[in-house]
Amino acid sequence: MRITDIETPAILIDLDIMEANLQRVAQYAHRHDLRLRPHTKTHKITALGKKQLDLGAAGLTVAKVGEAEIMAGTTPDLLIAYPVVGRSKLERLMAVTKQTEVTISLDSIAVARPLSDAARAADTEINVLVEADAGMGRVGVPPAELVDLAKAVSKLPRLKLRGFAFYPGHIKALDDDGRAQIGKLSYLIDSLVKEFKAAGLPADIVSGGSTPTLYHSHEVAGLNEIRPGTYIFNDRNTVECGACMWDDCAATILVTVVSTPRPGHMVIDGGSKTFSSDRLATGGEPTFGLIREVPGALFHKMNEEHGYVDLRRAERQDFEVGERLRVIPNHICVAMNLHEQVYGIRGDSVEQVWKVEARGKLQ
Amino acid sequence: MRITDIETPAILIDLDIMEANLQRVAQYAHRHDLRLRPHTKTHKITALGKKQLDLGAAGLTVAKVGEAEIMAGTTPDLLIAYPVVGRSKLERLMAVTKQTEVTISLDSIAVARPLSDAARAADTEINVLVEADAGMGRVGVPPAELVDLAKAVSKLPRLKLRGFAFYPGHIKALDDDGRAQIGKLSYLIDSLVKEFKAAGLPADIVSGGSTPTLYHSHEVAGLNEIRPGTYIFNDRNTVECGACMWDDCAATILVTVVSTPRPGHMVIDGGSKTFSSDRLATGGEPTFGLIREVPGALFHKMNEEHGYVDLRRAERQDFEVGERLRVIPNHICVAMNLHEQVYGIRGDSVEQVWKVEARGKLQ
Repeated sequence: MRITDIETPAILIDLDIMEANLQRVAQYAHRHDLRLRPHTKTHKITALGKKQLDLGAAGLTVAKVGEAEIMAGTTPDLLIAYPVVGRSKLERLMAVTKQTEVTISLDSIAVARPLSDAARAADTEINVLVEADAGMGRVGVPPAELVDLAKAVSKLPRLKLRGFAFYPGHIKALDDDGRAQIGKLSYLIDSLVKEFKAAGLPADIVSGGSTPTLYHSHEVAGLNEIRPGTYIFNDRNTVECGACMWDDCAATILVTVVSTPRPGHMVIDGGSKTFSSDRLATGGEPTFGLIREVPGALFHKMNEEHGYVDLRRAERQDFEVGERLRVIPNHICVAMNLHEQVYGIRGDSVEQVWKVEARGKLQ
Repeated sequence: MRITDIETPAILIDLDIMEANLQRVAQYAHRHDLRLRPHTKTHKITALGKKQLDLGAAGLTVAKVGEAEIMAGTTPDLLIAYPVVGRSKLERLMAVTKQTEVTISLDSIAVARPLSDAARAADTEINVLVEADAGMGRVGVPPAELVDLAKAVSKLPRLKLRGFAFYPGHIKALDDDGRAQIGKLSYLIDSLVKEFKAAGLPADIVSGGSTPTLYHSHEVAGLNEIRPGTYIFNDRNTVECGACMWDDCAATILVTVVSTPRPGHMVIDGGSKTFSSDRLATGGEPTFGLIREVPGALFHKMNEEHGYVDLRRAERQDFEVGERLRVIPNHICVAMNLHEQVYGIRGDSVEQVWKVEARGKLQ
């Protein structure tokens, strides 16, 4: 099978680039003695999770129980980096613990107590990381409350406190401000580790990191586990935040020109159902991807099945219906979630067709 | 099964409201002698397409061949309102013509010619609507070029020109400006019909309309077919553009509060993987849905699995982990595409569990 045989729109994964991306982070983690537990939300494919483990990852990370069910058979160790709430989800989670070692990150006793009850009922044990808000304002308790939460969790039966987690999603880019924030983060995490030790609490696992800060993880004192996701493919967000170059983007979305009704404009057969409508995380102009063949074109608007491309500043304007283009999306994780299958390519050959097995696992 | 048995996040369809919505548009179309060919992109479920046909729809509309393959067995008549480009898609389309009467809307000879060739090779015939740009600037030729395109299409073998199509997506709301634009649109469509007649071209089908303009379709002279989609469920966009009331929104997304780490804020278990990251079509504040229980809350930010809710102006602030809420999404079509199944409810009872069969049919 060749790329020309693929119907559009479709996600292509350049295997050479992907393998180099996987190697780079595996080596970085090894060099700095950081435990690597990649977040599989980016690829959602068990074969790629296995590849990450083969390259030295200690385990895998997921967000939802439905994703855990998909990945459980692949990995000896699984972190669910999301509070699991609700009786039937807890029951499904207990079944996952029969297949693999499970760790949950959580930020409240309201989540921890039913988890403890469920583990007792299922006669199993769950590892727990308590989660601190390192500045993003999403989940996680304020750092000053982390030790109290950890103490309370450590008293609950069948929960084994292993340390703490955080996600520095507030650091958007590696500019001067970003670097200054990494310094502050390091001070915060180091202080929390010291507080845990002083309180006699375990901090075997201090799990954090994000894509922009990935290669600065070793600068965060006390951090010993990273769980990056996007690095396997990279995307426009990764480039824009300074964590990779355009040539490190393994995933492109193959599209076809379907309409050229007005000079200087064209319509491609991918819109929000293909790319998602995610804007750039760093802000900036609200465009939806970089068209590799014409980087000067503006992919400026979408409907579900239509992508609007303004060619007036592009390197070429004379596109014809039927021509195919490859677009680096803003955010590859959400795009993967929209595709039933993706294609692993090398040059013009299709080497792999992967089902996106954990696609749409919302629960 | 009851609503309390459903794991979150999940789409609930209030069947009483949905049935009233279906009736309302069926009656409107009947009263004004408009052919109704609902766009199934909103629901993506064959059972609901069948319900639309049972209520008098003349056929169904889809965007992609993959959706046509799903709906073909349900309807005697199918409009693919999208240019079909590429050999393998045309082959699949020809297989669909063996199951149901197919019409394609297109805007170029570059799309029409391979379609004609494919129809000849398959020994079949395809109905065609040529598409005009009525002001949206997406697909469609400028109105002044429509008759020439129609003439060229009508000369191609195995294509049967039936009339023309347009989509007035530039009319965003029914304010004074929107009403003025409907007047202009009526003048344009009426002129095109007269041009077609003068040129001896068929205009049996003049297909148009959009959600904001839905109940004004009869004011557009010459228009004889409408293909609304969203009306079956309605959403925040439909309310904001003035085409329905909040109580007409049949679809809500059931979510659970998973974190309340800071006073005045909470995190729900639905983000862009559940709702899509579509903003309001009318612009306005960039929020992602209306929380029915606390309309004053601001659902202001998302990550893939996290919804950030600012409660500081809300009717209630004291939410606890585990509480469930129902959110009217900005755009229900894209949300449906993210869910494997949806739940038809009446009161607290779950009457139907529907697989979203045409979900993710991108090709």
